Amino acid sequence: MKIQFLILALLYMASCKPGMKGIDKDEKDANTPNFVILFADDLGYGDLGCYGNPIIRTPNLDQMADEGIRLTSFYVAESICSPSRVALLTGRYPFRSGLEFVLGPDSDAGIRDSEYTIAEGLKTKGYATAIFGKWHLGHKNNTLPTYHGFDEYFGIPYSNDMMPPWVQTETPLSLWENTEPVEHPVDQDYLTQRYTQRAVEFIRRNKDNPFFLYLPYNMPHMPVNTSEEFRGRSRGGLYGDVIETIDWSVGEVLKTLKEEGLDENTFVIFSSDNGPWADAPPRMVAAGNERYHAGNAGLLRGSKATKFDGGFRVPGIFRFPGRIPAGQVSAEMATTMDIYMTLMNMTEVDLPGDLKYDGNDMMPFLEGKSGSPTGEFYFILAQRIQGIRKGPWKLVIKNEGSVRIEHSDFEDIKLYNLDLDPGERYDFSEKKPEIVEELKQQIAEFDLQMLSESLKRQSSP
Amino acid sequence: MKIQFLILALLYMASCKPGMKGIDKDEKDANTPNFVILFADDLGYGDLGCYGNPIIRTPNLDQMADEGIRLTSFYVAESICSPSRVALLTGRYPFRSGLEFVLGPDSDAGIRDSEYTIAEGLKTKGYATAIFGKWHLGHKNNTLPTYHGFDEYFGIPYSNDMMPPWVQTETPLSLWENTEPVEHPVDQDYLTQRYTQRAVEFIRRNKDNPFFLYLPYNMPHMPVNTSEEFRGRSRGGLYGDVIETIDWSVGEVLKTLKEEGLDENTFVIFSSDNGPWADAPPRMVAAGNERYHAGNAGLLRGSKATKFDGGFRVPGIFRFPGRIPAGQVSAEMATTMDIYMTLMNMTEVDLPGDLKYDGNDMMPFLEGKSGSPTGEFYFILAQRIQGIRKGPWKLVIKNEGSVRIEHSDFEDIKLYNLDLDPGERYDFSEKKPEIVEELKQQIAEFDLQMLSESLKRQSSP
Repeated sequence: MKIQFLILALLYMASCKPGMKGIDKDEKDANTPNFVILFADDLGYGDLGCYGNPIIRTPNLDQMADEGIRLTSFYVAESICSPSRVALLTGRYPFRSGLEFVLGPDSDAGIRDSEYTIAEGLKTKGYATAIFGKWHLGHKNNTLPTYHGFDEYFGIPYSNDMMPPWVQTETPLSLWENTEPVEHPVDQDYLTQRYTQRAVEFIRRNKDNPFFLYLPYNMPHMPVNTSEEFRGRSRGGLYGDVIETIDWSVGEVLKTLKEEGLDENTFVIFSSDNGPWADAPPRMVAAGNERYHAGNAGLLRGSKATKFDGGFRVPGIFRFPGRIPAGQVSAEMATTMDIYMTLMNMTEVDLPGDLKYDGNDMMPFLEGKSGSPTGEFYFILAQRIQGIRKGPWKLVIKNEGSVRIEHSDFEDIKLYNLDLDPGERYDFSEKKPEIVEELKQQIAEFDLQMLSESLKRQSSP
Repeated sequence: MKIQFLILALLYMASCKPGMKGIDKDEKDANTPNFVILFADDLGYGDLGCYGNPIIRTPNLDQMADEGIRLTSFYVAESICSPSRVALLTGRYPFRSGLEFVLGPDSDAGIRDSEYTIAEGLKTKGYATAIFGKWHLGHKNNTLPTYHGFDEYFGIPYSNDMMPPWVQTETPLSLWENTEPVEHPVDQDYLTQRYTQRAVEFIRRNKDNPFFLYLPYNMPHMPVNTSEEFRGRSRGGLYGDVIETIDWSVGEVLKTLKEEGLDENTFVIFSSDNGPWADAPPRMVAAGNERYHAGNAGLLRGSKATKFDGGFRVPGIFRFPGRIPAGQVSAEMATTMDIYMTLMNMTEVDLPGDLKYDGNDMMPFLEGKSGSPTGEFYFILAQRIQGIRKGPWKLVIKNEGSVRIEHSDFEDIKLYNLDLDPGERYDFSEKKPEIVEELKQQIAEFDLQMLSESLKRQSSP
């Protein structure tokens, strides 16, 4: 045993590159890598070069995918903004945290104190934490990022269209610094660049510290905007320019990590909060936006705010040179909620005992050592369960009623096989009644869980 | 001048790798590279990994694209089989050669002697020429490949579904060797493998000779089939298995070229004859095919035998390590007819003076030295002009009548911008009347050309 240990220790020492810090520091680093989450807004499954867009060029994201793993069945918890974002940061379906609707500029609600965000967890391990961009989990009553684990915040706290003429409000759309609005009107042409500048500066300032950088872009949510420097770069028009601006931003972040020698020990994730609008909504068109300034869900069916995969399935690119083998592509299912559990596990954060989590540690999967981290995934929209995916099978139901569903009264059941038919076109429900039964049962059970959490929340202060 | 020439000559000699043949042989090689055209049947724009398929894995084609150029606006001349294929081999729209319909097992028609195929051209330069697979330009009255420039043929001369129960015919579906049917019934499970075996053997046999290898797979045309070895490989079901078999085949061809030291001097092209079926046709489903055994046009609209890009736009991958820089992706328009002119130009073939060609030499474009080789492209289906693409603009009209169209009576005009809107969803015709006028004019003029060629052909013997 002793000899084996000695050999292992020698091998480990031999594997350290010259110029790297000693074993103690390395071991510490291994438990406290840096984390960067780049999160676009309304960017669709088909909007990036590496996901098949024929027009828009995203060389930095394509390279990031080549150097890590690209997921082709990666889901957000809801196909709308605030719920999707709260799930990413808390590792829980939004019904558990009660943040089930899109917040507006005049909303009083937001993320509750009982939630435990990634940032809060990482703070207990000495991380510097920052968010530059779109928070969208509230801005009144202590719901801003700095009340929920982030050391610093700069950005618009909600969507970039939440101002007249798109939304009726007296509240001006402003850029906020920590807890105060500091600038309006906002020049949206420079939003992505300014967030990027903050991100780069944050990385440089914290290079000797573990850090968590969350960069939720306001783009390409309509109205799409970018600066003169980027306008006309893409043959895909302004929407393409905006995506290519985000690609530039990703490149700047990765370049900075390399320049500061942090590349190997930083886990970088790129995704989007939900799929694209199918089409610009009438209110956007009326205010002068072009209908084609919406993104592309590729070969997937549906869009943002629908129960179909075009709303829920998004690009998911994971790069961590020290841990994740390069050049992988996987169609195994995973979700943004798995990101939470992965980061918490990796850093050995003690999680609160009273919260139920929905994600699983996806690192063994990303490392190519195991299959999907996600047993089943529930499609929930506007407080109602609309479907389930388990393996390749997706069962969707019609659930627009005002009461919770019961097992017996599912309407309009469709069973899709997303491996054979990623576009959700062919109903297998008659061919596979046993799968329909199993998934119906799971939906009914999960719906009960949703109901019970909802009642619990209503009875708690 | 003399010194400059000497320096250039010395540089050139220095650039020759040790073990390579002398300058004379190289110069000869440069004018007579080998050509390989890999041509799938009904494979859609969205069926390959590098074109965004989330499920099907095509590592060999993805790598081929990485090592060359991948085109995202590459067109076939028609969105149906025989016309698309005759255009590839003759460099002319099918109305010029009169091969405007899909041929069946009992058709007497086929490619005319007046056409001058790629193979005929290359024969004049001493090429060995072979086709293994689906010819589909006739099999009676001296229309088979060996009457049109190919030294050897092995394959099914038409589609793999052209037998009962899918088609009413007394003619058995057979494998042909040169001019004779040699084997039936055909075990379709092994078609791709057997064509591949022939291809590999042909390359090895002709390694000291310039050669042209044309490998038009019968797959993934329905009914899809592959051997036990490949069944269950893809999580995309049998259709995925079939695509992955083709990917394997591409890998075998490229591997053989490398093993024989022919890699640098061989120009390899991969494409498909048209887009996928939108859905299995009823006759295929009735005979036990699955509806989802059709391919995927990705984010494009429409399918095989439609005027939309899902029928006409296909993968186009070009690899020629000695000439084409690696790692390129381009959305510039090009067509299969450009392939003809490229190969003829490169080998300095003298073309017949009496034939009008529709393609242009695309080599400067593939080398990254110039823009699109295609000024405008006409969408023709079933002898009728249905649209035109020029730059990003695509004008489509309704043209189902029994007489040639006239400028004044275009019906149902739509103008799409394929850069802003690759899915052909937003009609710009009201916004851009000047472009509509210009393109209508071009359609009317081209339609006259079609009429005049048709009359000329009818009056000639």
